Amino acid sequence: MKEIETKREIIRISNGKIERRQDTIVTEYPITVKINGQEFVTMVCTPEYIEDMVIGYLASEGVIKKYEEIKDIWIQEKEGFVHVTTDKINPYYQNFQNKRYITSCCGMSRQGFVFVNDALTAKKMQDVKVTLTPEECFRLMKELQASAVTFQQTGGVHTAALCDKNGMIMNRMDIGRHNALDKIYGYCLKNGISMEGKIIVFSGRISSEILLKVAKIGCEVILSKSAPTEFALQSAEELGITTVGFIRNESMNIYTCPERITF
Amino acid sequence: MKEIETKREIIRISNGKIERRQDTIVTEYPITVKINGQEFVTMVCTPEYIEDMVIGYLASEGVIKKYEEIKDIWIQEKEGFVHVTTDKINPYYQNFQNKRYITSCCGMSRQGFVFVNDALTAKKMQDVKVTLTPEECFRLMKELQASAVTFQQTGGVHTAALCDKNGMIMNRMDIGRHNALDKIYGYCLKNGISMEGKIIVFSGRISSEILLKVAKIGCEVILSKSAPTEFALQSAEELGITTVGFIRNESMNIYTCPERITF
Repeated sequence: MKEIETKREIIRISNGKIERRQDTIVTEYPITVKINGQEFVTMVCTPEYIEDMVIGYLASEGVIKKYEEIKDIWIQEKEGFVHVTTDKINPYYQNFQNKRYITSCCGMSRQGFVFVNDALTAKKMQDVKVTLTPEECFRLMKELQASAVTFQQTGGVHTAALCDKNGMIMNRMDIGRHNALDKIYGYCLKNGISMEGKIIVFSGRISSEILLKVAKIGCEVILSKSAPTEFALQSAEELGITTVGFIRNESMNIYTCPERITF
Repeated sequence: MKEIETKREIIRISNGKIERRQDTIVTEYPITVKINGQEFVTMVCTPEYIEDMVIGYLASEGVIKKYEEIKDIWIQEKEGFVHVTTDKINPYYQNFQNKRYITSCCGMSRQGFVFVNDALTAKKMQDVKVTLTPEECFRLMKELQASAVTFQQTGGVHTAALCDKNGMIMNRMDIGRHNALDKIYGYCLKNGISMEGKIIVFSGRISSEILLKVAKIGCEVILSKSAPTEFALQSAEELGITTVGFIRNESMNIYTCPERITF
Protein backbone atom coordinates (compact mmCIF):
# COMPACT_ATOMS: atom_id res chain seq x y z
CA MET A 1 0.00 0.00 0.00
CA LYS A 2 1.30 3.41 -0.89
CA GLU A 3 1.85 5.88 1.94
CA ILE A 4 -0.75 8.58 2.50
CA GLU A 5 1.85 10.85 4.02
CA THR A 6 5.60 11.07 4.11
CA LYS A 7 8.37 12.76 6.11
CA ARG A 8 10.55 15.50 4.75
CA GLU A 9 13.21 17.77 6.23
CA ILE A 10 12.13 21.40 6.18
CA ILE A 11 13.41 24.70 7.55
CA ARG A 12 10.96 26.07 10.09
CA ILE A 13 11.07 29.75 10.97
CA SER A 14 9.00 30.82 13.93
CA ASN A 15 9.25 34.13 15.76
CA GLY A 16 12.88 34.62 14.80
CA LYS A 17 13.94 31.04 15.59
CA ILE A 18 15.28 28.98 12.66
CA GLU A 19 15.44 25.19 12.84
CA ARG A 20 15.70 22.20 10.56
CA ARG A 21 13.07 19.64 11.39
CA GLN A 22 11.10 16.67 10.10
CA ASP A 23 7.69 17.59 8.78
CA THR A 24 4.76 15.43 7.67
CA ILE A 25 3.70 16.02 4.06
CA VAL A 26 0.58 14.62 2.44
CA THR A 27 1.07 12.58 -0.75
CA GLU A 28 -0.87 12.58 -4.01
CA TYR A 29 -0.84 9.73 -6.54
CA PRO A 30 -2.36 9.32 -9.98
CA ILE A 31 -4.68 6.32 -10.38
CA THR A 32 -5.75 5.34 -13.89
CA VAL A 33 -9.08 3.53 -14.25
CA LYS A 34 -9.38 1.06 -17.13
CA ILE A 35 -12.84 -0.12 -18.07
CA ASN A 36 -12.90 -3.38 -20.03
CA GLY A 37 -9.23 -2.87 -20.83
CA GLN A 38 -9.53 0.70 -22.08
CA GLU A 39 -8.16 3.71 -20.21
CA PHE A 40 -11.07 5.76 -18.94
CA VAL A 41 -9.88 8.35 -16.44
CA THR A 42 -6.88 9.31 -14.33
CA MET A 43 -7.63 10.62 -10.84
CA VAL A 44 -5.05 12.18 -8.55
CA CYS A 45 -5.86 11.13 -5.00
CA THR A 46 -4.79 10.15 -1.53
CA PRO A 47 -3.92 6.44 -1.87
CA GLU A 48 -6.44 4.74 0.42
CA TYR A 49 -9.92 3.25 -0.18
CA ILE A 50 -9.17 3.30 -3.90
CA GLU A 51 -11.73 0.63 -4.79
CA ASP A 52 -14.52 2.50 -2.99
CA MET A 53 -13.47 5.75 -4.67
CA VAL A 54 -13.62 4.23 -8.14
CA ILE A 55 -17.00 2.60 -7.49
CA GLY A 56 -18.37 5.87 -6.09
CA TYR A 57 -16.99 7.85 -9.01
CA LEU A 58 -18.41 5.52 -11.67
CA ALA A 59 -21.82 5.51 -9.97
CA SER A 60 -22.03 9.26 -9.41
CA GLU A 61 -20.96 9.94 -12.99
CA GLY A 62 -23.61 7.55 -14.23
CA VAL A 63 -21.08 5.25 -15.93
CA ILE A 64 -22.72 2.37 -14.06
CA LYS A 65 -26.27 2.43 -12.76
CA LYS A 66 -25.73 0.18 -9.74
CA TYR A 67 -22.91 -1.61 -7.97
CA GLU A 68 -23.98 -5.03 -9.30
CA GLU A 69 -23.07 -3.92 -12.83
CA ILE A 70 -19.41 -4.14 -11.86
CA LYS A 71 -18.44 -7.73 -12.64
CA ASP A 72 -14.89 -7.40 -11.40
CA ILE A 73 -12.65 -4.71 -9.97
CA TRP A 74 -8.99 -5.12 -9.02
CA ILE A 75 -6.21 -2.80 -8.13
CA GLN A 76 -2.72 -2.98 -9.60
CA GLU A 77 -1.20 -1.10 -6.72
CA LYS A 78 2.35 -0.49 -7.83
CA GLU A 79 1.50 0.46 -11.41
CA GLY A 80 -1.38 2.71 -10.34
CA PHE A 81 -4.14 0.99 -12.33
CA VAL A 82 -7.66 0.00 -11.35
CA HIS A 83 -9.20 -2.55 -13.71
CA VAL A 84 -12.98 -2.60 -13.95
CA THR A 85 -14.95 -5.18 -15.90
CA THR A 86 -18.58 -4.49 -16.73
CA ASP A 87 -20.97 -5.44 -19.53
CA LYS A 88 -23.44 -2.68 -18.68
CA ILE A 89 -21.52 0.50 -19.41
CA ASN A 90 -23.74 3.52 -20.05
CA PRO A 91 -24.00 3.81 -23.87
CA TYR A 92 -23.09 7.48 -23.57
CA TYR A 93 -19.58 6.50 -22.56
CA GLN A 94 -19.12 3.61 -24.94
CA ASN A 95 -17.81 5.74 -27.75
CA PHE A 96 -15.95 8.03 -25.49
CA GLN A 97 -12.40 7.64 -26.66
CA ASN A 98 -10.50 10.33 -24.82
CA LYS A 99 -9.20 9.56 -21.39
CA ARG A 100 -10.01 12.17 -18.79
CA TYR A 101 -7.66 13.54 -16.18
CA ILE A 102 -8.89 14.55 -12.75
CA THR A 103 -6.56 16.50 -10.56
CA SER A 104 -5.97 16.37 -6.87
CA CYS A 105 -7.34 19.84 -6.67
CA CYS A 106 -10.72 18.26 -6.73
CA GLY A 107 -11.18 18.90 -10.39
CA MET A 108 -13.59 16.74 -12.28
CA SER A 109 -12.79 16.53 -15.86
CA ARG A 110 -16.20 16.13 -17.33
CA GLN A 111 -16.58 17.37 -20.81
CA GLY A 112 -19.75 18.87 -22.00
CA PHE A 113 -21.89 15.97 -20.82
CA VAL A 114 -21.63 17.30 -17.29
CA PHE A 115 -25.15 18.58 -17.24
CA VAL A 116 -26.63 15.67 -19.16
CA ASN A 117 -25.34 13.18 -16.68
CA ASP A 118 -26.02 15.28 -13.64
CA ALA A 119 -29.63 15.36 -14.71
CA LEU A 120 -29.65 11.56 -14.91
CA THR A 121 -28.00 10.84 -11.58
CA ALA A 122 -28.84 13.72 -9.21
CA LYS A 123 -31.81 12.84 -7.05
CA LYS A 124 -34.39 15.41 -6.05
CA MET A 125 -35.21 15.25 -2.34
CA GLN A 126 -38.99 15.32 -2.16
CA ASP A 127 -39.51 14.72 1.54
CA VAL A 128 -38.06 15.70 4.86
CA LYS A 129 -36.69 12.45 6.29
CA VAL A 130 -34.28 13.94 8.78
CA THR A 131 -34.28 17.06 10.95
CA LEU A 132 -31.43 18.49 13.01
CA THR A 133 -31.19 21.07 15.75
CA PRO A 134 -28.39 23.65 15.56
CA GLU A 135 -26.74 21.87 18.52
CA GLU A 136 -26.69 18.63 16.51
CA CYS A 137 -25.06 20.49 13.60
CA PHE A 138 -22.36 21.93 15.88
CA ARG A 139 -21.71 18.51 17.40
CA LEU A 140 -21.38 16.76 14.02
CA MET A 141 -18.90 19.39 12.82
CA LYS A 142 -16.88 18.93 16.00
CA GLU A 143 -16.86 15.16 15.45
CA LEU A 144 -15.57 15.68 11.90
CA GLN A 145 -12.82 17.99 13.07
CA ALA A 146 -11.77 15.66 15.86
CA SER A 147 -11.47 12.82 13.33
CA ALA A 148 -9.33 14.78 10.89
CA VAL A 149 -5.93 13.72 12.17
CA THR A 150 -4.01 13.88 8.90
CA PHE A 151 -5.48 17.25 8.12
CA GLN A 152 -4.31 18.62 11.42
CA GLN A 153 -0.81 17.29 10.84
CA THR A 154 -0.35 18.28 7.25
CA GLY A 155 -2.98 20.89 6.44
CA GLY A 156 -3.34 19.31 3.06
CA VAL A 157 -6.51 17.21 2.85
CA HIS A 158 -10.26 17.53 2.88
CA THR A 159 -12.47 15.39 5.06
CA ALA A 160 -16.04 14.27 4.56
CA ALA A 161 -18.24 12.24 6.87
CA LEU A 162 -21.48 10.34 6.47
CA CYS A 163 -23.62 10.94 9.54
CA ASP A 164 -27.09 10.51 10.87
CA LYS A 165 -28.74 12.36 13.73
CA ASN A 166 -26.90 10.19 16.24
CA GLY A 167 -23.40 10.92 15.02
CA MET A 168 -20.72 9.98 12.54
CA ILE A 169 -21.05 6.68 10.67
CA MET A 170 -17.84 6.88 8.66
CA ASN A 171 -15.39 9.49 7.44
CA ARG A 172 -12.90 9.67 4.60
CA MET A 173 -10.20 12.13 3.68
CA ASP A 174 -8.48 12.97 0.43
CA ILE A 175 -6.43 15.75 -1.13
CA GLY A 176 -9.22 15.86 -3.75
CA ARG A 177 -12.49 17.14 -2.34
CA HIS A 178 -14.67 15.02 -4.62
CA ASN A 179 -12.62 11.92 -3.94
CA ALA A 180 -13.52 11.99 -0.24
CA LEU A 181 -17.21 11.93 -1.19
CA ASP A 182 -16.68 9.21 -3.82
CA LYS A 183 -14.95 7.05 -1.19
CA ILE A 184 -18.02 7.33 1.03
CA TYR A 185 -20.46 6.68 -1.82
CA GLY A 186 -18.57 3.62 -3.07
CA TYR A 187 -18.43 2.11 0.41
CA CYS A 188 -22.17 2.56 0.87
CA LEU A 189 -23.01 1.05 -2.53
CA LYS A 190 -20.77 -1.95 -1.90
CA ASN A 191 -22.25 -2.57 1.52
CA GLY A 192 -25.86 -1.74 0.67
CA ILE A 193 -26.12 1.12 3.15
CA SER A 194 -29.29 3.17 2.72
CA MET A 195 -28.91 6.92 2.33
CA GLU A 196 -32.27 7.69 3.89
CA GLY A 197 -31.96 10.23 6.66
CA LYS A 198 -28.22 10.58 6.13
CA ILE A 199 -26.19 13.77 6.30
CA ILE A 200 -22.88 14.78 4.69
CA VAL A 201 -20.51 16.82 6.86
CA PHE A 202 -17.71 18.39 4.83
CA SER A 203 -14.57 20.38 5.58
CA GLY A 204 -14.48 22.39 2.36
CA ARG A 205 -16.33 24.98 0.37
CA ILE A 206 -19.69 24.01 -1.16
CA SER A 207 -19.26 24.57 -4.89
CA SER A 208 -21.96 23.57 -7.36
CA GLU A 209 -20.16 20.32 -8.02
CA ILE A 210 -19.92 19.32 -4.39
CA LEU A 211 -23.61 20.03 -4.06
CA LEU A 212 -24.39 17.88 -7.11
CA LYS A 213 -22.25 15.07 -5.71
CA VAL A 214 -24.26 15.17 -2.47
CA ALA A 215 -27.47 14.99 -4.49
CA LYS A 216 -26.15 12.04 -6.48
CA ILE A 217 -25.20 10.21 -3.29
CA GLY A 218 -28.74 10.87 -2.13
CA CYS A 219 -28.28 12.89 1.07
CA GLU A 220 -30.75 15.59 2.11
CA VAL A 221 -28.41 17.75 4.16
CA ILE A 222 -24.88 19.09 3.75
CA LEU A 223 -23.08 20.76 6.65
CA SER A 224 -19.82 22.62 6.01
CA LYS A 225 -17.47 24.83 7.90
CA SER A 226 -16.88 26.86 4.72
CA ALA A 227 -18.90 29.02 2.34
CA PRO A 228 -21.21 27.98 -0.50
CA THR A 229 -21.34 29.57 -3.95
CA GLU A 230 -24.51 31.09 -5.37
CA PHE A 231 -24.74 28.47 -8.13
CA ALA A 232 -24.51 25.71 -5.50
CA LEU A 233 -27.34 27.32 -3.54
CA GLN A 234 -29.54 27.60 -6.64
CA SER A 235 -28.95 23.90 -7.32
CA ALA A 236 -29.67 23.07 -3.66
CA GLU A 237 -33.01 24.87 -3.87
CA GLU A 238 -33.94 23.01 -7.05
CA LEU A 239 -32.89 19.66 -5.62
CA GLY A 240 -34.42 20.22 -2.19
CA ILE A 241 -31.16 19.96 -0.24
CA THR A 242 -30.58 21.73 3.07
CA THR A 243 -27.32 23.68 2.99
CA VAL A 244 -25.68 24.86 6.19
CA GLY A 245 -22.32 26.65 6.03
CA PHE A 246 -19.82 28.51 8.17
CA ILE A 247 -20.33 26.13 11.08
CA ARG A 248 -17.81 27.40 13.60
CA ASN A 249 -18.14 26.85 17.33
CA GLU A 250 -21.73 27.78 18.13
CA SER A 251 -22.50 29.69 14.92
CA MET A 252 -23.80 28.67 11.51
CA ASN A 253 -25.65 29.93 8.43
CA ILE A 254 -28.69 28.15 6.97
CA TYR A 255 -28.82 28.89 3.25
CA THR A 256 -31.46 26.63 1.73
CA CYS A 257 -34.37 24.38 2.75
CA PRO A 258 -34.40 25.45 6.42
CA GLU A 259 -37.31 23.09 7.17
CA ARG A 260 -34.82 20.38 8.16
CA ILE A 261 -33.35 22.54 10.93
CA THR A 262 -35.58 22.66 14.02
CA PHE A 263 -35.34 24.83 17.09
CA MET B 1 -20.70 42.63 -16.64
CA LYS B 2 -21.87 39.75 -14.50
CA GLU B 3 -21.77 40.20 -10.75
CA ILE B 4 -18.93 38.58 -8.83
CA GLU B 5 -21.06 38.34 -5.73
CA THR B 6 -24.72 38.52 -4.89
CA LYS B 7 -26.96 39.05 -1.88
CA ARG B 8 -29.16 36.35 -0.42
CA GLU B 9 -31.34 36.10 2.66
CA ILE B 10 -30.05 33.50 5.11
CA ILE B 11 -30.84 32.35 8.64
CA ARG B 12 -27.90 33.09 10.92
CA ILE B 13 -27.58 31.24 14.20
CA SER B 14 -24.97 32.53 16.60
CA ASN B 15 -24.67 31.62 20.26
CA GLY B 16 -28.35 30.87 20.62
CA LYS B 17 -29.54 33.94 18.70
CA ILE B 18 -31.49 33.32 15.48
CA GLU B 19 -31.91 36.02 12.84
CA ARG B 20 -32.77 36.41 9.19
CA ARG B 21 -30.23 38.57 7.43
CA GLN B 22 -28.73 39.51 4.08
CA ASP B 23 -25.51 37.67 3.30
CA THR B 24 -22.97 38.12 0.50
CA ILE B 25 -22.48 35.00 -1.63
CA VAL B 26 -19.79 34.53 -4.24
CA THR B 27 -20.96 33.63 -7.77
CA GLU B 28 -19.59 31.10 -10.25
CA TYR B 29 -20.26 31.19 -13.99
CA PRO B 30 -19.38 28.83 -16.81
CA ILE B 31 -17.40 30.41 -19.66
CA THR B 32 -17.00 28.44 -22.88
CA VAL B 33 -13.93 29.16 -25.00
CA LYS B 34 -14.30 28.70 -28.74
CA ILE B 35 -11.14 28.56 -30.82
CA ASN B 36 -11.67 29.34 -34.51
CA GLY B 37 -15.37 28.69 -34.06
CA GLN B 38 -15.01 25.34 -32.33
CA GLU B 39 -15.82 24.74 -28.66
CA PHE B 40 -12.58 24.07 -26.82
CA VAL B 41 -13.13 24.23 -23.07
CA THR B 42 -15.66 25.33 -20.46
CA MET B 43 -14.24 26.94 -17.33
CA VAL B 44 -16.28 27.76 -14.24
CA CYS B 45 -14.96 31.01 -12.80
CA THR B 46 -15.51 34.30 -11.04
CA PRO B 47 -16.69 36.61 -13.83
CA GLU B 48 -13.96 39.26 -13.97
CA TYR B 49 -10.75 39.56 -16.02
CA ILE B 50 -12.12 36.85 -18.33
CA GLU B 51 -9.94 37.83 -21.31
CA ASP B 52 -6.76 37.68 -19.21
CA MET B 53 -7.83 34.33 -17.78
CA VAL B 54 -8.39 32.80 -21.21
CA ILE B 55 -5.06 34.14 -22.54
CA GLY B 56 -3.25 32.84 -19.45
CA TYR B 57 -4.94 29.47 -19.70
CA LEU B 58 -4.17 28.99 -23.40
CA ALA B 59 -0.53 29.99 -22.87
CA SER B 60 0.06 27.85 -19.78
CA GLU B 61 -1.54 24.84 -21.47
CA GLY B 62 0.67 25.37 -24.50
CA VAL B 63 -2.26 25.86 -26.87
CA ILE B 64 -0.57 29.06 -28.01
CA LYS B 65 3.14 29.73 -27.71
CA LYS B 66 2.94 33.50 -27.27
CA TYR B 67 0.35 36.22 -26.93
CA GLU B 68 0.91 37.49 -30.47
CA GLU B 69 -0.49 34.23 -31.85
CA ILE B 70 -3.94 35.35 -30.76
CA LYS B 71 -5.29 37.31 -33.72
CA ASP B 72 -8.56 38.25 -32.08
CA ILE B 73 -10.33 37.63 -28.78
CA TRP B 74 -13.78 38.87 -27.84
CA ILE B 75 -16.21 38.13 -25.08
CA GLN B 76 -19.89 37.43 -25.60
CA GLU B 77 -20.75 38.35 -22.06
CA LYS B 78 -24.39 37.39 -21.75
CA GLU B 79 -24.09 34.08 -23.56
CA GLY B 80 -20.91 33.12 -21.72
CA PHE B 81 -18.65 32.65 -24.74
CA VAL B 82 -15.10 33.77 -25.41
CA HIS B 83 -14.18 33.68 -29.10
CA VAL B 84 -10.51 33.24 -29.93
CA THR B 85 -9.09 33.44 -33.43
CA THR B 86 -5.60 32.09 -34.07
CA ASP B 87 -3.80 30.52 -37.02
CA LYS B 88 -1.03 29.07 -34.88
CA ILE B 89 -2.79 26.52 -32.71
CA ASN B 90 -0.50 23.82 -31.30
CA PRO B 91 -0.89 20.81 -33.63
CA TYR B 92 -1.45 18.61 -30.61
CA TYR B 93 -4.79 20.30 -30.05
CA GLN B 94 -5.87 20.54 -33.65
CA ASN B 95 -7.40 17.11 -33.74
CA PHE B 96 -8.71 17.34 -30.26
CA GLN B 97 -12.44 17.06 -30.75
CA ASN B 98 -13.80 16.73 -27.26
CA LYS B 99 -14.54 19.86 -25.35
CA ARG B 100 -13.13 19.94 -21.87
CA TYR B 101 -14.88 21.06 -18.73
CA ILE B 102 -13.02 22.81 -15.94
CA THR B 103 -14.79 23.23 -12.68
CA SER B 104 -14.79 26.07 -10.22
CA CYS B 105 -13.19 23.73 -7.78
CA CYS B 106 -9.97 24.49 -9.53
CA GLY B 107 -10.08 21.36 -11.59
CA MET B 108 -8.17 21.28 -14.80
CA SER B 109 -9.56 18.90 -17.21
CA ARG B 110 -6.49 17.80 -19.04
CA GLN B 111 -6.65 14.38 -20.48
CA GLY B 112 -3.62 12.24 -20.68
CA PHE B 113 -1.58 14.94 -22.39
CA VAL B 114 -1.13 16.64 -19.05
CA PHE B 115 2.46 15.57 -18.69
CA VAL B 116 3.38 16.02 -22.33
CA ASN B 117 2.31 19.62 -22.29
CA ASP B 118 3.67 20.37 -18.87
CA ALA B 119 7.04 19.27 -20.12
CA LEU B 120 6.75 21.70 -23.03
CA THR B 121 5.66 24.76 -21.08
CA ALA B 122 7.08 24.46 -17.56
CA LYS B 123 10.31 26.42 -17.26
CA LYS B 124 13.21 25.23 -15.16
CA MET B 125 14.63 27.98 -12.96
CA GLN B 126 18.37 27.81 -13.43
CA ASP B 127 19.47 30.88 -11.49
CA VAL B 128 18.67 32.74 -8.34
CA LYS B 129 17.32 36.09 -9.53
CA VAL B 130 15.49 37.07 -6.38
CA THR B 131 16.07 36.53 -2.68
CA LEU B 132 13.73 37.26 0.22
CA THR B 133 14.14 37.52 3.95
CA PRO B 134 11.55 35.83 6.18
CA GLU B 135 10.29 39.32 7.10
CA GLU B 136 9.67 40.07 3.43
CA CYS B 137 7.72 36.79 3.13
CA PHE B 138 5.56 37.68 6.15
CA ARG B 139 4.91 41.16 4.77
CA LEU B 140 3.89 39.91 1.30
CA MET B 141 1.44 37.42 2.84
CA LYS B 142 -0.06 40.20 4.96
CA GLU B 143 -0.44 42.37 1.85
CA LEU B 144 -2.26 39.53 0.08
CA GLN B 145 -4.60 39.02 3.00
CA ALA B 146 -5.33 42.71 3.33
CA SER B 147 -6.25 42.82 -0.37
CA ALA B 148 -8.62 39.86 -0.20
CA VAL B 149 -11.82 41.80 0.46
CA THR B 150 -14.25 39.44 -1.27
CA PHE B 151 -12.69 36.48 0.42
CA GLN B 152 -13.17 38.04 3.80
CA GLN B 153 -16.81 38.78 3.03
CA THR B 154 -17.80 35.51 1.46
CA GLY B 155 -15.18 32.94 2.39
CA GLY B 156 -15.49 31.53 -1.08
CA VAL B 157 -12.57 32.57 -3.27
CA HIS B 158 -8.84 32.07 -3.67
CA THR B 159 -6.46 34.96 -4.14
CA ALA B 160 -3.13 35.09 -5.90
CA ALA B 161 -0.72 38.01 -6.21
CA LEU B 162 2.24 38.77 -8.39
CA CYS B 163 4.90 40.45 -6.29
CA ASP B 164 8.51 41.45 -6.30
CA LYS B 165 10.76 42.16 -3.33
CA ASN B 166 9.21 45.60 -2.94
CA GLY B 167 5.62 44.48 -2.62
CA MET B 168 2.50 43.49 -4.49
CA ILE B 169 2.26 44.35 -8.21
CA MET B 170 -1.21 42.97 -8.85
CA ASN B 171 -3.64 40.50 -7.35
CA ARG B 172 -6.55 38.48 -8.69
CA MET B 173 -9.17 36.34 -7.05
CA ASP B 174 -11.35 33.52 -8.30
CA ILE B 175 -13.42 30.65 -6.98
CA GLY B 176 -11.11 28.46 -9.10
CA ARG B 177 -7.56 28.37 -7.78
CA HIS B 178 -5.95 27.98 -11.18
CA ASN B 179 -8.08 30.74 -12.65
CA ALA B 180 -6.57 33.34 -10.31
CA LEU B 181 -3.11 32.41 -11.59
CA ASP B 182 -4.27 32.37 -15.22
CA LYS B 183 -5.68 35.89 -14.79
CA ILE B 184 -2.28 37.09 -13.61
CA TYR B 185 -0.41 35.27 -16.38
CA GLY B 186 -2.70 36.57 -19.14
CA TYR B 187 -2.37 40.14 -17.91
CA CYS B 188 1.42 39.89 -17.90
CA LEU B 189 1.55 38.37 -21.40
CA LYS B 190 -0.77 41.04 -22.81
CA ASN B 191 1.22 43.85 -21.23
CA GLY B 192 4.68 42.41 -21.80
CA ILE B 193 5.55 42.25 -18.11
CA SER B 194 8.76 40.32 -17.44
CA MET B 195 8.59 37.51 -14.88
CA GLU B 196 12.22 37.87 -13.86
CA GLY B 197 12.56 38.21 -10.11
CA LYS B 198 8.82 37.86 -9.59
CA ILE B 199 7.10 35.95 -6.80
CA ILE B 200 3.65 34.34 -6.58
CA VAL B 201 1.84 34.71 -3.26
CA PHE B 202 -1.13 32.38 -2.97
CA SER B 203 -3.95 31.79 -0.51
CA GLY B 204 -4.44 28.08 -1.18
CA ARG B 205 -2.77 24.74 -0.90
CA ILE B 206 0.20 24.03 -3.18
CA SER B 207 -0.80 20.96 -5.18
CA SER B 208 1.38 19.64 -7.99
CA GLU B 209 -0.74 21.51 -10.50
CA ILE B 210 -0.45 24.85 -8.78
CA LEU B 211 3.30 24.34 -8.66
CA LEU B 212 3.39 23.52 -12.38
CA LYS B 213 1.32 26.60 -13.14
CA VAL B 214 3.84 28.75 -11.26
CA ALA B 215 6.64 27.17 -13.27
CA LYS B 216 4.79 27.83 -16.52
CA ILE B 217 4.26 31.45 -15.59
CA GLY B 218 7.99 31.59 -14.93
CA CYS B 219 8.23 32.59 -11.26
CA GLU B 220 11.02 31.32 -9.01
CA VAL B 221 9.22 31.52 -5.69
CA ILE B 222 5.79 30.58 -4.38
CA LEU B 223 4.63 31.69 -0.94
CA SER B 224 1.45 30.21 0.52
CA LYS B 225 -0.38 30.25 3.78
CA SER B 226 -1.35 26.60 3.25
CA ALA B 227 0.39 23.24 2.91
CA PRO B 228 2.12 21.71 -0.11
CA THR B 229 1.78 18.09 -1.25
CA GLU B 230 4.77 15.80 -1.61
CA PHE B 231 4.35 15.55 -5.39
CA ALA B 232 4.36 19.36 -5.62
CA LEU B 233 7.60 19.49 -3.63
CA GLN B 234 9.24 16.87 -5.85
CA SER B 235 8.28 18.94 -8.90
CA ALA B 236 9.54 22.11 -7.20
CA GLU B 237 12.92 20.48 -6.59
CA GLU B 238 13.17 19.37 -10.20
CA LEU B 239 12.12 22.76 -11.52
CA GLY B 240 14.25 24.77 -9.10
CA ILE B 241 11.35 26.61 -7.46
CA THR B 242 11.47 27.87 -3.87
CA THR B 243 8.39 26.71 -1.95
CA VAL B 244 7.41 28.37 1.31
CA GLY B 245 4.20 27.30 3.05
CA PHE B 246 2.24 27.77 6.27
CA ILE B 247 3.05 31.49 6.37
CA ARG B 248 1.09 32.64 9.39
CA ASN B 249 1.99 35.73 11.41
CA GLU B 250 5.74 35.41 12.00
CA SER B 251 6.08 31.72 11.14
CA MET B 252 6.72 29.82 7.92
CA ASN B 253 8.11 26.57 6.51
CA ILE B 254 10.73 26.48 3.73
CA TYR B 255 10.30 23.25 1.77
CA THR B 256 12.47 23.50 -1.34
CA CYS B 257 15.34 25.56 -2.79
CA PRO B 258 16.06 27.50 0.43
CA GLU B 259 18.86 29.44 -1.29
CA ARG B 260 16.39 32.20 -2.19
CA ILE B 261 15.56 32.84 1.47
CA THR B 262 18.27 34.83 3.24
CA PHE B 263 18.73 35.62 6.89
